[in-house]
Amino acid sequence: MNFKMIGRFLSQIIAIEAFFMLPALGISFFSGETTAALGFGYTILICGTLAGTMYLICRKAGRLFAAREGFVCVGFSWIMLSLLGALPFVFSGEIPHYIDAVFEIVSGFTTTGASVVGNVEALPKGILYWRSFSHWLGGMGVLVFLLAIVPGGERDTGFTMHLLRAESPGPDVGKLVPKMKNTAMILYIIYVVLTIINFIFLLFGNMPVLDALCTAFGTAGTGGFGVYNDSMGSCSPYVLWVTTVFMFLFGINFSCYYLLLLRQFKAVLKDEELRLYIGIAAVSVLLIAVNIFSKVNTLYDTPGEVLTHAAFQVSSIMTTTGFSSVDFGQWPAFSKGILLMLMLIGACAGSTGGGFKVARLMLIFKILRRNIRQVLNPKKVQLVRNNGSAVSETVLANTNAYLAAYIIIIVISYLVISLDGNSVGTNLSAVLACFNNIGPGLEGVGPMCNYAHFSSLSKIMLSLDMLAGRLEIFPILVLLSRSTWKRK
Amino acid sequence: MNFKMIGRFLSQIIAIEAFFMLPALGISFFSGETTAALGFGYTILICGTLAGTMYLICRKAGRLFAAREGFVCVGFSWIMLSLLGALPFVFSGEIPHYIDAVFEIVSGFTTTGASVVGNVEALPKGILYWRSFSHWLGGMGVLVFLLAIVPGGERDTGFTMHLLRAESPGPDVGKLVPKMKNTAMILYIIYVVLTIINFIFLLFGNMPVLDALCTAFGTAGTGGFGVYNDSMGSCSPYVLWVTTVFMFLFGINFSCYYLLLLRQFKAVLKDEELRLYIGIAAVSVLLIAVNIFSKVNTLYDTPGEVLTHAAFQVSSIMTTTGFSSVDFGQWPAFSKGILLMLMLIGACAGSTGGGFKVARLMLIFKILRRNIRQVLNPKKVQLVRNNGSAVSETVLANTNAYLAAYIIIIVISYLVISLDGNSVGTNLSAVLACFNNIGPGLEGVGPMCNYAHFSSLSKIMLSLDMLAGRLEIFPILVLLSRSTWKRK
Repeated sequence: MNFKMIGRFLSQIIAIEAFFMLPALGISFFSGETTAALGFGYTILICGTLAGTMYLICRKAGRLFAAREGFVCVGFSWIMLSLLGALPFVFSGEIPHYIDAVFEIVSGFTTTGASVVGNVEALPKGILYWRSFSHWLGGMGVLVFLLAIVPGGERDTGFTMHLLRAESPGPDVGKLVPKMKNTAMILYIIYVVLTIINFIFLLFGNMPVLDALCTAFGTAGTGGFGVYNDSMGSCSPYVLWVTTVFMFLFGINFSCYYLLLLRQFKAVLKDEELRLYIGIAAVSVLLIAVNIFSKVNTLYDTPGEVLTHAAFQVSSIMTTTGFSSVDFGQWPAFSKGILLMLMLIGACAGSTGGGFKVARLMLIFKILRRNIRQVLNPKKVQLVRNNGSAVSETVLANTNAYLAAYIIIIVISYLVISLDGNSVGTNLSAVLACFNNIGPGLEGVGPMCNYAHFSSLSKIMLSLDMLAGRLEIFPILVLLSRSTWKRK
Repeated sequence: MNFKMIGRFLSQIIAIEAFFMLPALGISFFSGETTAALGFGYTILICGTLAGTMYLICRKAGRLFAAREGFVCVGFSWIMLSLLGALPFVFSGEIPHYIDAVFEIVSGFTTTGASVVGNVEALPKGILYWRSFSHWLGGMGVLVFLLAIVPGGERDTGFTMHLLRAESPGPDVGKLVPKMKNTAMILYIIYVVLTIINFIFLLFGNMPVLDALCTAFGTAGTGGFGVYNDSMGSCSPYVLWVTTVFMFLFGINFSCYYLLLLRQFKAVLKDEELRLYIGIAAVSVLLIAVNIFSKVNTLYDTPGEVLTHAAFQVSSIMTTTGFSSVDFGQWPAFSKGILLMLMLIGACAGSTGGGFKVARLMLIFKILRRNIRQVLNPKKVQLVRNNGSAVSETVLANTNAYLAAYIIIIVISYLVISLDGNSVGTNLSAVLACFNNIGPGLEGVGPMCNYAHFSSLSKIMLSLDMLAGRLEIFPILVLLSRSTWKRK
């Protein structure tokens, strides 16, 4: 294991985090929130010292590395980011317990949006900004950011590929352009532009500037930290529809946008994952709208309102954002079942959304179909194809392993948090909502509740789930695997 | 598709079912239960006529067949058995609605034990016998029975292998001896002998003869239809422990018993699946006992009672039998979580128990471990081993596909039955309890409730789940697959 290389890498990540705390410090300072400003100040000092020391110790790192160094870098980076990013919450006294603060910032960076804060509106502006900005940073990935901005020879070697592969969501990481650094840059440019457009649309809806900024961060990262106590329950239909559309857009594979820039419209239209994603969302909206239509005149005034909330919730849950426009805990069991299913599926690979990913679901169905055909015709070799070209057996094997790890982690997490008591619905949906980086679940963790009532053990378990979900399990498994730490 | 061959095969299966109704007819007749006796009489007549007609039409079948004929035979056989086996319930008026009656007998044949009957003790003796006997027949498989007893040239060809492969539980079907017919016979002899021993042990516990017989049937088939309204809640600790031990024994791969007969004790002791099965059960009993220990003095009188019920419920749920000695719905959430996990896992492959199977769980873990190693060392070829020898990639692929199908079926079934309303816990545990052939679940389908309150649609869905679970999904998927019915 090349520890010095990992150390040097971590020092850069910490420095970036400190740099990104500066706006939060500024907002706190100019809003006259002295305690919060001091909190950010102290944290920036700690980060700076730590990064400097680590860089000095590790600057002469060798250049030997392998896949596992990539996974370990990613795993440790996210853990460090969370442990340090939680400090402003503690120093400002807004979330006094450190485990709670870590839960909150892990929920931010992993774009989950599960909160331990009951009264969000009482938070200082700087803290509110930092919470929401963590979504934006975590959404595209902070390592991808590092790759995009930092110049350097080694960054265009295999190491970068390993890093990007470990941090990016989806069964198969495609390079958009031959140089990894440029791929990362293109991704971030698309991301920034889409976020700005979303922000402007929200401003047109008469949202205050900071609220619009935070909501755009939460939407872009498919995070879901709200700036109001009822999430988005009191927003106008215009704001709800803008958010519905943008959540959906950020749940699409970003390579589709790159293809659009290259004017390859046909390739986008024919993309199998995109079609399935749209199909699942459309069918879900329809089923839920029909199912909750009976609530017109009790919960909702007009059929239009029914459609608005159905579309908003489907977009929010499927993209794993987790904003809520309404208490879907009051919906009939079937609608809640659809939402649970969407929680399991998640958004597209290569988007900022979490979950199992539509692309993997598609592969699993195709593998299953191949398997049935193979049982019926054992002698015929069957290939699994995606968008016309054969999918490598390695990707298929990884997808199968992913499903297995996914289920095993859900079962273990369920058992650990069930020690707190709570109903089956609460425990199951809490695990699904955290592991798939959604945020709100059902019953005791429904949209009108929060995660404050869980024990510290459960909060640690759910934080690990959020990290495992965001990093797509393997970096965390590699960190925990014995063979990673064995000397060769 | 060789329809005549399938028809002739079905005619034999129907004849066997009619034959096995004779004891129920006798019991009804001698107990003076005229309506029930007439019910069985009519059904036997119908079966006889149907079997005769089908045999006459299909007796000159060609000998061409392939894997799909095996799957189709198994799927259709089980559906026919259920549709006809439900008739006595309807004719006797005990379960007047046909869909309810089909649910009940599917639950019987698939060894699920989920019931729509509230007051079991009021059922006529013949009906009670037929319900419990269906567990026994379904446990080892009625096709296996056919293979064991019917002489014939074609039965020792590949067709038999396809049949046995489609009906027998587990990722890989081993022949005990070179001739399939003899394998089937050995399995049934072990099964009969163990059932008789269990029956005698129950008689020593002062159980009435018919109750002991029905309980032995329910235990041997890991079915779980009780003969008392409180399942086994009022039984003595002796009877509970006898049942705990025998449920556990019937959850073990029967090839282990064959190895014992061959005095290959070492091979049995080293069997990885058996070790894991015992390990999971022991840890679960321990965790539940500790977790419910606080209930001493409230629910239970002594620590011994706690251990008795913990061991009984773990054995009952893990082997997918589904007897209950106590209302485990009152246990803390963690204990219920352990039971839910055991529901997912199930018993050993090649036993009469259902579920995902311990052998598959083990393979999934090994595949996952291999995958992590492969990611870290892409150039090294890694094999998955079981009991020392390499597992073929076909079996691994099938295991992965099985997991995928398993999850997809659970999600779809959940959605369908959630149309009835009910809580997340009720819906989820009903699907798990039916699909894994267990019987009782949690909340609305807990040990003190039954399945009568579900709509007809839900009952049909759950019946299909039970069949899919018992036949390990693929025969049902093959029946539903387009490529099965395509002409070559």
